[in-house]
Amino acid sequence: MTESLVIDNIGSLITNDPTVGRGALGIIENASLVITDGAVEAMGPAGANGDTRIDAKGGCVLPGFVDSHTHLVFAGDRAEEFTARMAGEPYDGGGIRVTTDATRATPTDELHRLVRLRLAEAHRAGTTTIEIKSGYGLNVTDEARSLEVAEHYTTETTFLGAHLLPSEYEGRADDYIELVCNEMLTASAPHAKWIDAFCEEGAFDEDQSRAVLEAGRAAGLGLRLHGNQLGTGAGVQLAVECGCASVDHCTHLTDADIEALAGSDTVATFLPAADFSTRQPYPDARRVIDAGATVALASNCNPGSSYTTSISFCIAIAVREMHMTIDEAIQAVTLGGAAALQRTDIGHLTPGASGHAVILAAPSHHHLAYRPGVPLIRQTIGPLGAFV
Amino acid sequence: MTESLVIDNIGSLITNDPTVGRGALGIIENASLVITDGAVEAMGPAGANGDTRIDAKGGCVLPGFVDSHTHLVFAGDRAEEFTARMAGEPYDGGGIRVTTDATRATPTDELHRLVRLRLAEAHRAGTTTIEIKSGYGLNVTDEARSLEVAEHYTTETTFLGAHLLPSEYEGRADDYIELVCNEMLTASAPHAKWIDAFCEEGAFDEDQSRAVLEAGRAAGLGLRLHGNQLGTGAGVQLAVECGCASVDHCTHLTDADIEALAGSDTVATFLPAADFSTRQPYPDARRVIDAGATVALASNCNPGSSYTTSISFCIAIAVREMHMTIDEAIQAVTLGGAAALQRTDIGHLTPGASGHAVILAAPSHHHLAYRPGVPLIRQTIGPLGAFV
Repeated sequence: MTESLVIDNIGSLITNDPTVGRGALGIIENASLVITDGAVEAMGPAGANGDTRIDAKGGCVLPGFVDSHTHLVFAGDRAEEFTARMAGEPYDGGGIRVTTDATRATPTDELHRLVRLRLAEAHRAGTTTIEIKSGYGLNVTDEARSLEVAEHYTTETTFLGAHLLPSEYEGRADDYIELVCNEMLTASAPHAKWIDAFCEEGAFDEDQSRAVLEAGRAAGLGLRLHGNQLGTGAGVQLAVECGCASVDHCTHLTDADIEALAGSDTVATFLPAADFSTRQPYPDARRVIDAGATVALASNCNPGSSYTTSISFCIAIAVREMHMTIDEAIQAVTLGGAAALQRTDIGHLTPGASGHAVILAAPSHHHLAYRPGVPLIRQTIGPLGAFV
Repeated sequence: MTESLVIDNIGSLITNDPTVGRGALGIIENASLVITDGAVEAMGPAGANGDTRIDAKGGCVLPGFVDSHTHLVFAGDRAEEFTARMAGEPYDGGGIRVTTDATRATPTDELHRLVRLRLAEAHRAGTTTIEIKSGYGLNVTDEARSLEVAEHYTTETTFLGAHLLPSEYEGRADDYIELVCNEMLTASAPHAKWIDAFCEEGAFDEDQSRAVLEAGRAAGLGLRLHGNQLGTGAGVQLAVECGCASVDHCTHLTDADIEALAGSDTVATFLPAADFSTRQPYPDARRVIDAGATVALASNCNPGSSYTTSISFCIAIAVREMHMTIDEAIQAVTLGGAAALQRTDIGHLTPGASGHAVILAAPSHHHLAYRPGVPLIRQTIGPLGAFV
């Protein structure tokens, strides 16, 4: 039996298809959106019929946000570390070990409960597709366990055993990478779509990161990389060399990095809420975009460097601090996030696409930057259980 | 008949009284708060009794936020101006005329509807006391009308006829100030508690601003001033000279300004969301605080330079960008706002104070900065109709 849902009385509908509407975002005014069995059937003028009708009350409707970078499986928080950092302590990622200890010590059903709370919060904030990484287990059992939790909620699961060296491997980074690439990968790969590594001074170097990516590729996983968060380094160029779907952070880029991104299919994913919460400078998004690279914005939700699920906050910061236009920021959290996950079924609202949408309590998408801090997401369409 | 409300199972209760709890914020852990007939009766350990019980579920409870600077009576929005500014257009306050035209053209019942929507949004975001200025009428009828609307919702109403020179007075600023100080003041004063002026290059100069403040004082109004938003100028020192309750913005301060503030009872009110949305530098809050001045943080909610009602957003920006500690930021939106309105009954939760409180979906007040963009206000206590 087919079930149709009509979102009617839409003030402005962002389709992300410039062939069907105005501008790069393909905006249709005074529109309706028909979603049948979870997929977009049609966009049209206001007044369409369907089994269920939602009144957008003149608000803007956008594709549901695609948050392509989160670390939702964790226990505990690090509010004290944040407060100390704001008082002048530097950020070096070392606090990851605190979360690893807490996560290892937490029963699986409690991890499920915590992840569900965070997913509900993200969903209320407009996110309809989410990537979830492991990386707070850092041993065979707990990495696999974290991914088993994550795969209950999303198909976009990422094995990040190479997040940071666990304290029990202090001084033996190559031994740990050996474990990640073999036993830990074997246990984790059945529950993961992607593999990732943190290629950064203080985490893992270029050769170690390459070894992880190559092992993941051999195990059938897609590739992504953390890089260039705290300084320039090998990350971006390694990601491009390996054909990663995305390289994430990109806060510190050289001309050569930008050139490499522009000549590749690797998406540059900015995580400005992390730069906010670690008081890093913001990435130079303008140069990356103007060079022709594809960009995404994601929350990086995690308890150490970026404890937010708010894509609206990321948009506002990207516009104010990174000089992205509002249209570019909207594309980056929809089409950009989809590209970073190599998905073509999400991030746009055109016939056949997933019927994941956000209804704003505001007449235009500009308000997401114009009204910082105001929770403007009136309703998120795309059931919480279907976080795929 | 007395009615008592108990907020129970409070993880951490911010009383703002260091004699009853830990630290400058006077924090009591595992607490309850008893509110009788709208006033705080007692704070104590969890488990108190009352007619109505609200379970804080281990969350943090704070005094309701005091937003001491808003311009809520207006029609229309200026999203396009914001977008143009983010693309490089400078901000000079000139867009105030756009809002004036829209506000003058809007029927009074529609202005009421718009103000109520914004108050409801602010209340959901934790604000329990709000100041509302006129300033988009800029003629005798519409300034008085704006204040008549505002006084339905708050006792903290401010006559801001000297917001900007209306276009019909182009080249005749002194004539307009004459109008403000006489006929407009006479019509407005019955509906206002405060008088305010925008003392800034491009708005009104020192002598004009002083004339407005003195006329207001003679009419029995309390004094406040906008100053030092877009550059250094006479604002802060004029405010101190006149004994204003608060001087608002304080984005550009000289050493002499800071010295004047520190030696006065005038509160320095920072409006960082305006600096965010106009891409101004942020005020040097550290120097002001370290010099010993009293500071407040407010939203400056208005459609041109700061279209937010989110005090949480202001806290996060104040911590990240202005290097205020989280405790200082919390004080600035509670006790600081109260001081800026010369109120002693709000901004703290001690016996006899107004029973206005915010319950967070978070265990500590640190989360208001640690979790930027996340709507953490679970419930606001203090009825919307009692916005006083």
